[in-house]
Amino acid sequence: MAIEHLHTVPHLTVAPGGPVLAMEQQFLAKQIEIEAWFREQWRHVSPPFYSSVDLRNAGFKLAPVDTNLFPAGFNNLNPAFMPLCVQAVQTAIEKYCPSACRVLIVPENHSRNKFYFESLGTLQNIILTAGYDVRIGTFREDVTEPIEVEYGAGKKLRLEPLIKEKDQLIVENFNPCLIICNNDLSSGIPEILNDVKQPILPPLTLSWTHRTKTSHFSQYTEIAQKFAELIDLDPWVITPLHRNCGTVNFKTGEGQDCLTKNADALFKAIREKYQQFAIKEEPFVVVKADSGTYGMGVMSIQSPEELIKLNRKQRTRMSTSKDGIAISKVILQEGVYTFENWGDDHAVAEPVVYLIDHYVVGGFYRVHKNRSATENLNAPGMHFEPLAFAESCNTPDPERSVSAAPNQFYAYGVIARLATLAAAHEQFALDRNQV
Amino acid sequence: MAIEHLHTVPHLTVAPGGPVLAMEQQFLAKQIEIEAWFREQWRHVSPPFYSSVDLRNAGFKLAPVDTNLFPAGFNNLNPAFMPLCVQAVQTAIEKYCPSACRVLIVPENHSRNKFYFESLGTLQNIILTAGYDVRIGTFREDVTEPIEVEYGAGKKLRLEPLIKEKDQLIVENFNPCLIICNNDLSSGIPEILNDVKQPILPPLTLSWTHRTKTSHFSQYTEIAQKFAELIDLDPWVITPLHRNCGTVNFKTGEGQDCLTKNADALFKAIREKYQQFAIKEEPFVVVKADSGTYGMGVMSIQSPEELIKLNRKQRTRMSTSKDGIAISKVILQEGVYTFENWGDDHAVAEPVVYLIDHYVVGGFYRVHKNRSATENLNAPGMHFEPLAFAESCNTPDPERSVSAAPNQFYAYGVIARLATLAAAHEQFALDRNQV
Repeated sequence: MAIEHLHTVPHLTVAPGGPVLAMEQQFLAKQIEIEAWFREQWRHVSPPFYSSVDLRNAGFKLAPVDTNLFPAGFNNLNPAFMPLCVQAVQTAIEKYCPSACRVLIVPENHSRNKFYFESLGTLQNIILTAGYDVRIGTFREDVTEPIEVEYGAGKKLRLEPLIKEKDQLIVENFNPCLIICNNDLSSGIPEILNDVKQPILPPLTLSWTHRTKTSHFSQYTEIAQKFAELIDLDPWVITPLHRNCGTVNFKTGEGQDCLTKNADALFKAIREKYQQFAIKEEPFVVVKADSGTYGMGVMSIQSPEELIKLNRKQRTRMSTSKDGIAISKVILQEGVYTFENWGDDHAVAEPVVYLIDHYVVGGFYRVHKNRSATENLNAPGMHFEPLAFAESCNTPDPERSVSAAPNQFYAYGVIARLATLAAAHEQFALDRNQV
Repeated sequence: MAIEHLHTVPHLTVAPGGPVLAMEQQFLAKQIEIEAWFREQWRHVSPPFYSSVDLRNAGFKLAPVDTNLFPAGFNNLNPAFMPLCVQAVQTAIEKYCPSACRVLIVPENHSRNKFYFESLGTLQNIILTAGYDVRIGTFREDVTEPIEVEYGAGKKLRLEPLIKEKDQLIVENFNPCLIICNNDLSSGIPEILNDVKQPILPPLTLSWTHRTKTSHFSQYTEIAQKFAELIDLDPWVITPLHRNCGTVNFKTGEGQDCLTKNADALFKAIREKYQQFAIKEEPFVVVKADSGTYGMGVMSIQSPEELIKLNRKQRTRMSTSKDGIAISKVILQEGVYTFENWGDDHAVAEPVVYLIDHYVVGGFYRVHKNRSATENLNAPGMHFEPLAFAESCNTPDPERSVSAAPNQFYAYGVIARLATLAAAHEQFALDRNQV
């Protein structure tokens, strides 16, 4: 990546002076209160080990649209912030497991995704540099003995088969005291991960086997409400509205009525807020599988009627998610425009913010040249250029302009932390339900 | 500072392949064991809030020569590592005082030291950026109402008079829940700081009123011994030998015999190690006030006889320390050559490493153009050019050469952490003595 890329930031196509700018001004003015509030929150719930939060910045609204607790994409972060990642990992692991020095990563089951392996290699390197011995143990059925995976310029990863010895998860000659899961377990929790004695981070209750986007955004909505009160903000400016249905089946049409009714109500609610804020854009809604990731089982609609007129291809596409898992629950989420763009050809740019523990350690933009502002920027097979954040998210500077890079990144970090806090509350609620 | 300065590192004038290089190789090879060892150490003692450690790199030896628990010089750190400082401060303060949001800094009593005010401003800014409201309360007698101090390019600091309200230390309309002391209290602990209810960091037992360099280096020697065993190293390679006397008085000659005898023994011990390692240099010894800082009351000697032949000027200079405090105890410390140099004119360069809590957050070199390798580089009125460390101290990279910058900085960080660990044990011992 060219140096000049690292030192510039996408800009908003909307005129300055809108609600997001006002919000960012509030963030700077109330930074001390905001940080004290977060500290208070983290006294009551533990942050997930790591998380990445997809944000969208519409100028009139800055909100999370997805929160990933098994993040990939570490390779897209600015190498200049490696020290920050290392320090955060040191704090995070020391807390969970003070005397640990052997860590095992359980990766996704991809066999040929070069980008994923780059991320996995970066993650391994961060934890290694933090002072832990790190090995990678996979439950891929085709990995029955250690294999080497090449990625990037001569870089190699060693994947080893996971072994269960009584209640210990190990790889050969390596008994870790901590397991870090980097597999979102969309296809369910494999037998080998059950009843493991070592701590697994994040806990398996937070995998897509248990989690739903609905519960995440319900928690987020509550948290954003409280946060908005603190800094005297309309919570809608940071919250995507959402609704959900019981069981749906796009192939058979089951749950169709409920979907249409909810979409109707959601469009109405968005329209009201658009009127209130004098926003001229057309509302849109995103329909997503309620559990799962990788942008599969996702579509944008401009009206509730579109849900009725789906063609067969669309119905098929909305019926299966990652790993071929059937979709039976969806969330209807207010679509948030991306008005940030990058370069001469005004490519759409969507920020992704990374946290380790409760520390914001960096992020990058997904820059996509052939997509519109309403489309999902994280879709299968989709090409994007990563553009690393040029500066950290923890150095707001009230003496500079509100739209200066460190202040814009600080705002991203605040919203991302609200989403991560919501995930921590999900875990809390799920743990309670398990008891 | 020019960009190229930030991306280069002083180099050693000694040939590569010496003991320090071998040591650095061990550091890289045993990085996981080293980090696990430090984690284990920090389970038993709390790190000081912050510290700076003066190191000297002789090529055959890399050792601390002074450990400051009330560090100045924050302005000399690389601004690129501000995020690392911010994150470390967040962890440190959150731990001591989880719900705190008002922090008071008690500064040195300087009234005209522009460099000190730059450091103080930087420190205030780091804590502010970490999300705490920070004010500066001084016990300078001439500050009876708030004053503004200008420093650097239009930057200003506000100093307010410290007020004691019952057992609370405050400044007007500002009741802090945490006091950070940036005054080493060489002249004693002022009445206003006694019996304060809020936590004071570092604790006043660690001020130069109570601390001695002898106890610091005794602790350091023990710790370095254990650490050296871990990585199979001769501990002398990282430890300055030292000896001390009871009461001495350079003016009256009291304690002269003891000093000479100890100097004799110390020179002998150094000479033995020099022979063992085939070092051709001449040993030297540094005589320092046992309590105190700012490089006052310090002299280098090349032989024990020099102590007998001191002229009146030298005797006077060795009789008073910072703030005119009479010196009655001294430490005799093995002199460690500085063979790192910088630039075409081979200016002498001495690394100073900064820690916040147990995190190494950066450092800089004192680059001095008119000093020799045996002289003290931190002397009153002395001019040095600060040269910020170009990279962080927590990203060792075993795939690069041992002398690559991140690996050299990692080695500095390891030694500095040993010194900070020694300071933590000093505190532990002092606390025990107080009970």
